[in-house]
Order: sequence, then structure tokens, then C-alpha cells
Amino acid sequence: MTDSTPASSRVKVKRHGERGHYDRTVIDAILDEGLVAHVGFVVAGQPYVIPTLYARSGDTLYFHGAAANRMLDTMAGGPVCVTVTLLDGLVLARSHYNHSANYRSVVVLGTPREVTDRDEKMRSFQILVDHVAQGRWEDARQPNETEIKVTRVLALPLDEASAKIRVGPPMDDEADQGLPVWAGVIPLRVVADPPIPAPELTAGIPTPGYASGYHR
Amino acid sequence: MTDSTPASSRVKVKRHGERGHYDRTVIDAILDEGLVAHVGFVVAGQPYVIPTLYARSGDTLYFHGAAANRMLDTMAGGPVCVTVTLLDGLVLARSHYNHSANYRSVVVLGTPREVTDRDEKMRSFQILVDHVAQGRWEDARQPNETEIKVTRVLALPLDEASAKIRVGPPMDDEADQGLPVWAGVIPLRVVADPPIPAPELTAGIPTPGYASGYHR
Repeated sequence: MTDSTPASSRVKVKRHGERGHYDRTVIDAILDEGLVAHVGFVVAGQPYVIPTLYARSGDTLYFHGAAANRMLDTMAGGPVCVTVTLLDGLVLARSHYNHSANYRSVVVLGTPREVTDRDEKMRSFQILVDHVAQGRWEDARQPNETEIKVTRVLALPLDEASAKIRVGPPMDDEADQGLPVWAGVIPLRVVADPPIPAPELTAGIPTPGYASGYHR
Repeated sequence: MTDSTPASSRVKVKRHGERGHYDRTVIDAILDEGLVAHVGFVVAGQPYVIPTLYARSGDTLYFHGAAANRMLDTMAGGPVCVTVTLLDGLVLARSHYNHSANYRSVVVLGTPREVTDRDEKMRSFQILVDHVAQGRWEDARQPNETEIKVTRVLALPLDEASAKIRVGPPMDDEADQGLPVWAGVIPLRVVADPPIPAPELTAGIPTPGYASGYHR
């Protein structure tokens, strides 16, 4: 699985190099399962990290927001780091020192491009909405010209990306194996509860399957 | 709830100011529920965002890792941004434009302090472990002198922090209210599955309650 080489030394996994993956199929699977990206950008030497929705289409990550959005403003002008993390479990070892977490994360470095082409902008809206709930695009009202205009879209290429993955049981020192301490993994996952219809929802509209049976 | 003022203009919530909270009880509740922080730091003008475990004690966030860890190295030397995000739901509006997410996030800015005092270091280990699974500290093997030495701990004060929260149903334009489109919220939460004992676990050790009944 971890067969390819990093695109740059900047995305090479340094700590626990054995957890590094540079294969796009591994990277894409994590990006497609995630919902929230943490975007890092720099203003006057100070880093900021802001959570935002995103979606992948081929070799591109799309981000959107209000035209006056500071994050997008800064993203468009400079280098960013986009990180997506899926927490899969808590790893309880016999020693505190070997406690850990199971996770899959992706780091993408680059400078985003402003999406100005109307068709690409519309496609990006569909990609963003369907990433959140597959099939939603067909159901809701399409963006009108004003909404298209006041929404800014940025595109980040997946040229410089890496994944880091930890799986499996705790790795205790041999001397600790016999300790009378419970050790193992507590698996974690995100689940959806039954959807809550909007208070003033018109009667008789059925709950769509992507909402009633939501899962990542 | 949102009664106090931001500690600085740098952490004042800009987009959707009504979602900003500066009250420490609100900020602390989010930090105490979260498991993963995304830490932003800058190396040669490039921002990096790395996921890591953390824990709060009073007015301090603690982070730890290997002494040679690049993230900790850079964190110790310069300004950082620590962001914790809890995704509570997906907000499906009648128009794509008004789609959103329900979430609670905290942003902390500052420059971490290296923890060198042995007692504070040990306390921080306990805080970190018990933040992940309350009660675990009493059960597992305590750190020995070597482990204390090769683990680096950083402390970030909560002096400059803010929370941003969105709750509630979709906010559609009045003109869209009558559209025959399902609208509402898909609630999301993190759940734990039954713990997986380590493969070579000594027979007869019961699964502790914090593992079998894990919840945030």
C-alpha cells in the first residue's frame, strides 16, 4: 500500500516514518471519507487554523465561502496546509508511555487557485454538496446568479500530499507484556442520529434516504 | 452565554459574529469534550497543520511527544494556533446556498512554554491520559525516568481563545420556505464500539468500565 515516494521532503512523514503513505488511492480514500478539513494559513507571521467543509474532485480539493471570507482571502494569496483527520480509536497500552491513537490523516500543501470559470464554480458546488450527502444536489434549489457571485471558490491541487495512518493493537515493551493491566483498542466512529426536519417543513415531504440512512 | 469580550482582535470571530463566544466556560467545555487538536505552526513561511492529542488543566493546554518531534520543536519556538472542532450535524437547507454544518470549535493563539519541572511534567501525563479515558492513570504502568526524559511536554496558556458555535435548523430565505424540498439537520456524534483486547492480553483481566462504556 505504501509503495510510492513523497512528492517532496515537505510532506514526507518524519515521526514514525512507517506510518507514511504517498499513494493517491490511500490519500483519496481518507479525503473522501472526511467531512471537515483544518486549513492553516499565515497572517503577519501568525498561523491560523480554521475548520471548513471541503470536497475532492479528481486531483483537486475545493473550498468555498462568502466572498469577504478572511480565510479564503488569505488562502488565495499564500501557501496553505490542509489537514483532514479521521480518529479511528484509542490505544490503551500497559504503560502510559505507549498509549496512542489509531487514526488516518492527510496533509496537503500548496497555494490555492481562485475558481472564476462559471461552469467549474457550479460543478464545485455540486461536488461540495454531494460530498456531504450523496444525491442532495438533485433535490435542493440550485444556486442563482447572485448566490454564485457572492460565493468564492478556491481549488487546491493534490500535488504535494501525504497520509499518515496508525492501525492495530498497542505496542507494549516486552517487559510490560505480563503486567496485570488491561490493554487494547477502543474503536471510535462517527454515526448519524435520525434526521430532525426543519420546524416549518411543508407537510408530506418524505425524508430522503441520504438523510434517514446517513453514513460515511 | 456569549457575554464576555474577546481577549484580542485576533481571536474575534469575523464571519458570523453572532456565532462567537469568549466565555471560558463555553471554551473549556469544547476543549474537554474534544480528543484531537489541529496545531498550526510555520516553518520557512509555510504553515503546517498536524493533528495531536491534548488535554486541558485549568488555564493551560498540554501537548506531548517525542523529544525529537518536529512539531513540538517548532511549537516551542514560535506562535501557534490550536484548533479543536466538534462536528455536531449537517444542515440541509432548501437551497444549496444555505447548506451549512452545526459545529463547536475553539481557536487558541499563543506561544507555548516548555515544561521542564518534573512534577508538572508528571501531572501533565496524568491529565493527558485521563482526558482520553478518565481513570486510566490509576491502572497502567507509570512513566519511568527514561520515558519522562524522552517525552517533551509543552504548555499553551488559554489567554487568547475564542469559540465558534452553530446550532439549530437550516435558515432558508423566506422565498424558499415553500419549496417541496426536504430540509433539516442530520445529527452526528462520535461513538465507541466494544473494546478490542490486545492479542496477547493476560487471561482473566477484566475490561475496565472506561473502556467498555466509553463515551465523550
